[in-house]
Amino acid sequence: MEARIGFYDRARQIFDLTLAQQALEWDQEVMMPAQGADQRAHQLAALATVVHEKLTDPAYGGLIDAFEASRDLDERARADVREARRARERAVRVPGRLVAERTEACARAQAAWLEARPRNDFAAFRPHLERVMDLTRELAEAQGMPSPYDALLDEYEPGMTEARLRPLFDDLRRRLVPLLERIRGASRRPDPAPLARCFPVQDQEVFCRRLVTDMGFDLDAGRFDVSAHPFTTGTHRDVRLTTRYREDWLPCSVFGTIHEGGHGLYEQGLDARFFRDPSGGACSAGLHESQSRLWENLVGRSLPFWSHYYPVLQATFPGVLDEVPLASFHGAVNVVEPSLIRVEADETTYNLHILLRFELESDLIARRITVKDLPELWRIRMEQQLGIAPPDDRSGVMQDIHWAVGLVGYFPTYALGNLYAAQFMERMREELRDLDERLSRGELGVVRTWLRERIHVHGRVWPAQELCERATGAPLSVEPLMRHLEAKAHTFYGI
Amino acid sequence: MEARIGFYDRARQIFDLTLAQQALEWDQEVMMPAQGADQRAHQLAALATVVHEKLTDPAYGGLIDAFEASRDLDERARADVREARRARERAVRVPGRLVAERTEACARAQAAWLEARPRNDFAAFRPHLERVMDLTRELAEAQGMPSPYDALLDEYEPGMTEARLRPLFDDLRRRLVPLLERIRGASRRPDPAPLARCFPVQDQEVFCRRLVTDMGFDLDAGRFDVSAHPFTTGTHRDVRLTTRYREDWLPCSVFGTIHEGGHGLYEQGLDARFFRDPSGGACSAGLHESQSRLWENLVGRSLPFWSHYYPVLQATFPGVLDEVPLASFHGAVNVVEPSLIRVEADETTYNLHILLRFELESDLIARRITVKDLPELWRIRMEQQLGIAPPDDRSGVMQDIHWAVGLVGYFPTYALGNLYAAQFMERMREELRDLDERLSRGELGVVRTWLRERIHVHGRVWPAQELCERATGAPLSVEPLMRHLEAKAHTFYGI
Repeated sequence: MEARIGFYDRARQIFDLTLAQQALEWDQEVMMPAQGADQRAHQLAALATVVHEKLTDPAYGGLIDAFEASRDLDERARADVREARRARERAVRVPGRLVAERTEACARAQAAWLEARPRNDFAAFRPHLERVMDLTRELAEAQGMPSPYDALLDEYEPGMTEARLRPLFDDLRRRLVPLLERIRGASRRPDPAPLARCFPVQDQEVFCRRLVTDMGFDLDAGRFDVSAHPFTTGTHRDVRLTTRYREDWLPCSVFGTIHEGGHGLYEQGLDARFFRDPSGGACSAGLHESQSRLWENLVGRSLPFWSHYYPVLQATFPGVLDEVPLASFHGAVNVVEPSLIRVEADETTYNLHILLRFELESDLIARRITVKDLPELWRIRMEQQLGIAPPDDRSGVMQDIHWAVGLVGYFPTYALGNLYAAQFMERMREELRDLDERLSRGELGVVRTWLRERIHVHGRVWPAQELCERATGAPLSVEPLMRHLEAKAHTFYGI
Repeated sequence: MEARIGFYDRARQIFDLTLAQQALEWDQEVMMPAQGADQRAHQLAALATVVHEKLTDPAYGGLIDAFEASRDLDERARADVREARRARERAVRVPGRLVAERTEACARAQAAWLEARPRNDFAAFRPHLERVMDLTRELAEAQGMPSPYDALLDEYEPGMTEARLRPLFDDLRRRLVPLLERIRGASRRPDPAPLARCFPVQDQEVFCRRLVTDMGFDLDAGRFDVSAHPFTTGTHRDVRLTTRYREDWLPCSVFGTIHEGGHGLYEQGLDARFFRDPSGGACSAGLHESQSRLWENLVGRSLPFWSHYYPVLQATFPGVLDEVPLASFHGAVNVVEPSLIRVEADETTYNLHILLRFELESDLIARRITVKDLPELWRIRMEQQLGIAPPDDRSGVMQDIHWAVGLVGYFPTYALGNLYAAQFMERMREELRDLDERLSRGELGVVRTWLRERIHVHGRVWPAQELCERATGAPLSVEPLMRHLEAKAHTFYGI
């Protein structure tokens, strides 16, 4: 009993401190005055140091050992021990000197990226990126895994390895590239023009609030704000979503909101009894992304969904979409078109953007290529796989902030999210034969309930891949996503 | 050099963690969804524990000693050592068990207060208050000062003692009670009715934003929001003010905003080089209150101020105050009228509310009275000193949250603030002969600059009373405040 209390007290204290970090980061993006950045950086650094001290404290190691040695641990308790030990060992293996150096290098690289990107000046950004990549490789090597890139993947998608990922992604590429070629050669195609009319921001906000509320997101246990880059943070009874509005491009807020709403439902859906425990949080970055993508693409771009919401949307913007029939609108939100910028990509081409980044970053970490090679490789592979090449580096290798801030091994989780999402949706559809009928009546709760019971409440008791198998009865595969994308290509492009 | 770095690194880390606490508390009041309270309590408790660990860490004690022993410390460095040691020793003297017990007792008492106050149920609140007072007395006794109440005072007003405070407050009472009696018997009196018209909230907000901006508060280094109980938090380049609006009572937002603006200017006016150091922050709670009260009452209720702003106010609310002349409006914001609720009290009677609380809490801590005696003593002394008695405990002893949350020894700083403010203003007026003329042209910067140079930039290099002497050439006295209040009584009540 004493071992139990000692272990959970310490583990939950660490959790509470990381939630405090998250709250300060949310504030920084959404509320903080511009000039507060320097002070906030000090606060976050102080908190990061404290969390690292708490994780690496030998006494905490002793508490984990003592609890593990107690009798009759149930599955939850064993998972708590596993996750606590995992987080602690990852921290212990990294020398404090390296953490500090890398934090500083990332801060500098981020500032350099912010300056260099609009000026299209990769040469100015390059030394900073080199430094981040070198320190990230060193960090990865310190984990002592068979491959350094696996150590990075493992941070965001525990248990995932390059050896498992590569065949999945190879499959995906082999299927996506020809599909995209056929789509590009199709004789009929939907018209996105209706989405680019004038949609007053305040009316968009009303519609988006209705969407997250209907999805089942509890605004008494969360917030819904605006930020430059939409994100979701917090957990359980304090979950915060952001979105952004473009008056001349409706999908920006609508699909952004549904996406973040999916993340938010995951956090609100965790088991209330365990959310502060090491195995009580969301399972992995890929699983998290599966929730947002399932809602955004598999629900939010479906005909049943818009059968219910299109009349609501039309009424929200009187006169704007009156003469556009439902079928045309549904086509408009399902256009497939190779483009340069990942965050604006459609459901089909999005995965090719991720594959490109995965190849480049795994090659960089394995020293098969260097930072210097990136711009040229980016152009060549974009041309090969998407059929278009960026005219400059700002819409090429410099478009994402991830590498500048040291997020290496993270991009794959976006594609994994798409794969998980499609597999979950296929299974849900098998179990709920009247799913489309209910969606077309606006009953979004049916999706939320299924996801809550199959995914959310289980936290990270099992690794993501095992959770997927338990929820769907099959290991993760590209088939459900490809079936989904091919069916859409048939519907909208007649192929 | 090494001793210097070691000392400041640790001291600033502790400071940064307390700023993080403040940011989370701001969020809790202003942004957090209602259901997030429980999670936030855990986060704040975890941070409080960490700060206590850092303060009491023997290694920190060693760093303070080592830095103190280095040669050629200047005045700032010596003040940093003094303040660091003071904070550390206060923490070391309190057993961890007591901190935890008291934190929990205060949380329970606050909840009990929130429930009991609207029901006017002092009996239900009493055991909780007794527990808080017992633990607070124990906490005070642990400091080992000659009097336990001094130990509480010292937390908020370093160096202040009951022995110094009592003669000041006795003076104040001896002068205020007869002044109030004369005011109550006066044959003429200003009419507050113009302040109770309909003032649309959005226009109040425009006016209030203009006021804080004109005062010199930098909104790029701060925020201005709404909360149930107005407050100011943060420091330097991230200072956040709140206010509240009542459509039917203009002074609520206008004087609330000027008040919080005064606090905000203090924080923004600290010396940028030192604000993270132990002696770089605001000097004391009383000094802080002097800044808010000086702006609110000595500037914000003056004729020169309204000579400039009254036409702006009239234009902000077209038609509402058209026929009310400046002199009447100026009288309306200077009405003196005994009332039951401290936070709604005028400049003159406010101090009597504070004296009452000081007497009761110092008697409680010294065991001269018990919690059981409070309601009756409250009624008797209100009747004696203000001439009115509360009909119930909710507008009597239960009106303030302070005691429930363990703030004992804090109330006196409100009255000290008024005394300091009047003394500063008298000195400013002596030095700046054209002050009124400049205020009547709306040049508020002249006040800000004087306060910044005389008060703000010095942080807590000297104790508050020494800072006051340096700024005004005289020790703190009740004379300037009484001269100010008596002059106003003459102007508005003809006495």
